[in-house]
Amino acid sequence: MLEAEYQPDFNKRGGLVPAVVQDAFSGEVLMLAWVNESAWNHTRDTGNATFWSTSRNELWEKGATSGDWLKIVEIRVDCDDDTILFRVTPIGFGACHTKNQAGQTRKSCFFRQVNSDGSILNLDP
Amino acid sequence: MLEAEYQPDFNKRGGLVPAVVQDAFSGEVLMLAWVNESAWNHTRDTGNATFWSTSRNELWEKGATSGDWLKIVEIRVDCDDDTILFRVTPIGFGACHTKNQAGQTRKSCFFRQVNSDGSILNLDP
Repeated sequence: MLEAEYQPDFNKRGGLVPAVVQDAFSGEVLMLAWVNESAWNHTRDTGNATFWSTSRNELWEKGATSGDWLKIVEIRVDCDDDTILFRVTPIGFGACHTKNQAGQTRKSCFFRQVNSDGSILNLDP
Repeated sequence: MLEAEYQPDFNKRGGLVPAVVQDAFSGEVLMLAWVNESAWNHTRDTGNATFWSTSRNELWEKGATSGDWLKIVEIRVDCDDDTILFRVTPIGFGACHTKNQAGQTRKSCFFRQVNSDGSILNLDP
């Protein structure tokens, strides 16, 4: 008898579940994107973190165009089955689509700090 | 002249922005919850991570009832202004509302690993 494979609950938010991406070695949080059933299956089949692009409305295998892959080390899910944590090894340089002034792709999308006075500090200018 | 204070873009998803909560010391990802403008302001005013409970439809200052506060160390925002990263020090025991078999509140909501065969491994049983 086959046991059913685990799946996140894709029904809660119209088929999409947020996926937090974390560098498995450094612990740094790199990005957050959205995963549907198709992206979930593709991630598990390929070992490459894959999302559903809500702007382009298509499967988004991170790295396929940029070369900046996110190789899955471990997948975790939360207590409510409605959030995914991809622990990854980034291949290439960065997870973010923005670049710093040196022309390098930023490693993390979370490169800006909000100060207590409401101003912004860019940690990777 | 006062510079406007930074705010995430709350208009993208009906007023709510996902907030990833990370232990600032260990790097562990603890939970993900939702923040609206009111929760954002409350977090910045109090230094306590505060969310909008989408199930109870009310402001949810984490710790107010459980004693398990998440004290803000640093707030970061992503490149698209639509995801927040709260780097925190947890006060009390855990961030999760579930308990392990020893009766302890689990530190992280992401205590389950999805194995390559689709089975689940509980890392904090």
